[in-house]
Amino acid sequence: MSADLALSCPVPLRRHTTVQLAHGGGGRLMRQLLEDIFLEAFRSPALAERHDGAVVPLGGQRLAFTTDSYVVTPRFFPGGDIGKLAVLGTVNDLAMAGAKPLYLSAGFILEEGLPLDELRRVVASMREAARECGVEIVTGDTKVVDKGKADGLFINTSGVGRVSEGVSVHPRRVRPGDAVLVSGDVGRHGIAVLSVREGLAFETPVESDCASLAPLVAALFEAGVEVHCLRDTTRGGLATALNEIALDAGVGLVVDEPAVPVDESVAGACELLGLDALYVACEGRMVAFVPEPQAERALEALRRHPVGAGAACIGRVTEGPAGMVSLRTRLGGQRLLDLLSGEQLPRIC
Amino acid sequence: MSADLALSCPVPLRRHTTVQLAHGGGGRLMRQLLEDIFLEAFRSPALAERHDGAVVPLGGQRLAFTTDSYVVTPRFFPGGDIGKLAVLGTVNDLAMAGAKPLYLSAGFILEEGLPLDELRRVVASMREAARECGVEIVTGDTKVVDKGKADGLFINTSGVGRVSEGVSVHPRRVRPGDAVLVSGDVGRHGIAVLSVREGLAFETPVESDCASLAPLVAALFEAGVEVHCLRDTTRGGLATALNEIALDAGVGLVVDEPAVPVDESVAGACELLGLDALYVACEGRMVAFVPEPQAERALEALRRHPVGAGAACIGRVTEGPAGMVSLRTRLGGQRLLDLLSGEQLPRIC
Repeated sequence: MSADLALSCPVPLRRHTTVQLAHGGGGRLMRQLLEDIFLEAFRSPALAERHDGAVVPLGGQRLAFTTDSYVVTPRFFPGGDIGKLAVLGTVNDLAMAGAKPLYLSAGFILEEGLPLDELRRVVASMREAARECGVEIVTGDTKVVDKGKADGLFINTSGVGRVSEGVSVHPRRVRPGDAVLVSGDVGRHGIAVLSVREGLAFETPVESDCASLAPLVAALFEAGVEVHCLRDTTRGGLATALNEIALDAGVGLVVDEPAVPVDESVAGACELLGLDALYVACEGRMVAFVPEPQAERALEALRRHPVGAGAACIGRVTEGPAGMVSLRTRLGGQRLLDLLSGEQLPRIC
Repeated sequence: MSADLALSCPVPLRRHTTVQLAHGGGGRLMRQLLEDIFLEAFRSPALAERHDGAVVPLGGQRLAFTTDSYVVTPRFFPGGDIGKLAVLGTVNDLAMAGAKPLYLSAGFILEEGLPLDELRRVVASMREAARECGVEIVTGDTKVVDKGKADGLFINTSGVGRVSEGVSVHPRRVRPGDAVLVSGDVGRHGIAVLSVREGLAFETPVESDCASLAPLVAALFEAGVEVHCLRDTTRGGLATALNEIALDAGVGLVVDEPAVPVDESVAGACELLGLDALYVACEGRMVAFVPEPQAERALEALRRHPVGAGAACIGRVTEGPAGMVSLRTRLGGQRLLDLLSGEQLPRIC
């Protein structure tokens, strides 16, 4: 159903014959690539769910399984690096499936000539992140390609976790009337990376929000909140996460722009760079869909944790129009918060 | 223990400060990279086992978990392509852990400008290989990097499988007296890739042996063979697989060169290219360590399957010298079959 929605979107998609940067941007072109090539070929029910991680049966257990490759440039940025990102990003995808993250794999593609000391720093950072998250890196692989055939270092991490009985976190559980929560201010990660990449110096340096979301998810469950859906707001930012869920759930969303927390320095940087903070990637933020009567309890649970201190209710789910996200702007108007068709910030994760 | 053995090897290792192609070659330098950087940092018992896949507990089950990135060049070669390789390679790593392969993830790193039709071909090939192996690709990820920052297409596949009760396949189970079996003739994959890469035309074209080993492993278990250890002979070929196991098991191996099956066309190509077939990668061959009295039964089980038709007993396990593989040559002499320190064939998988 969601595939139909995307394919029948009002703007005709330009047909490309080669891979474009925007195919990796999290927006409309990426969705098209996913639908035309991957979903079409693999036809896996789990894959077709298009959740951050698959939940599959394994001998009476429910296993969450997820993968992500990390190609961020530069590899070191305020608040993190590619190694920390590779661990936390995959841990977060498991958490978004409602799973307790347990084990990670690490696959390295190294470019000939990469300084070994840099690899050591990245690996140390992965170890530290894994330790903090309580996950174990249990298997790995290293490939080396000739100079000029990669960009220093790419990392793939895959993760497995266990989904407890009774937990079901999925776009199809989203209901009209649900409250839409965000766990903190958005856009820090993208701006932090961009500031190094472009050599920008802001008055207040922006640090990536790179953090594990697993404790927040655990806090919601512990507080007895009936969590309908979770999604981390990575590539394409908050706006993209909301659009994906609206499409996959077949519901409408109304988001209150003034309620969306954006740090002043991020807002300033966005203004300077001509970016919309709602589309800028985070790496330690999520949206949570919960029944409206439980929204306050959920916010309290989130705010008790430092990573969720800035949690806010930013909108609600409506019957329709299906797949549409409307934004009530600061000036009192209303506009469509669309999927980007192009690429706002390449190689942000 | 095996770390000590490797670090105390008689040849002093040149210390590098940057990544060398040979760090990915499966030989001595790669082992050093693994020990100095990854094992040192992650200190995971499962990782330290250095098996093809980790076996970890998950809610009363034993889960096998493995990862591999594929960077083979060229992407299409006689008998296979990067997509088929990515599925079968990871399925084989699960099989080598004694697991039944169940689910795969697929992470793509695409270079801007890659023809989408080529991606479609690779993905179709993955689908076909997954279908043949009875595994499901359940989760995926796509990243795009700018032109010149990758080499067309890299694929990571990670896999999970289930290890049945009572199964324990591991170097530490290898015993003096065990028979060493190989499931077929060696070196086809490397020569097939090289023939395209170098534009070589052999009298008889060599096709990659790229195939799933899972049915062979199942056949051994079904025949009631007490399988001590399995290893696919990929990067670095048969010689490297044997060295790894000798090191990790702390045993010696004696291998009878004339007993090692090498196809005539592969032998010819190796002579022409100055390669030793025992170090050339396969992608559908394994070594199996079984108690000597069960060797005949094991060979019969392997040979009943087309992929194992050429199975042979090639040697036996000795008390020592620990970590050493001796080759009884065709001419009746004896020589050390050492780990390569450099790189014989880069980007073979």
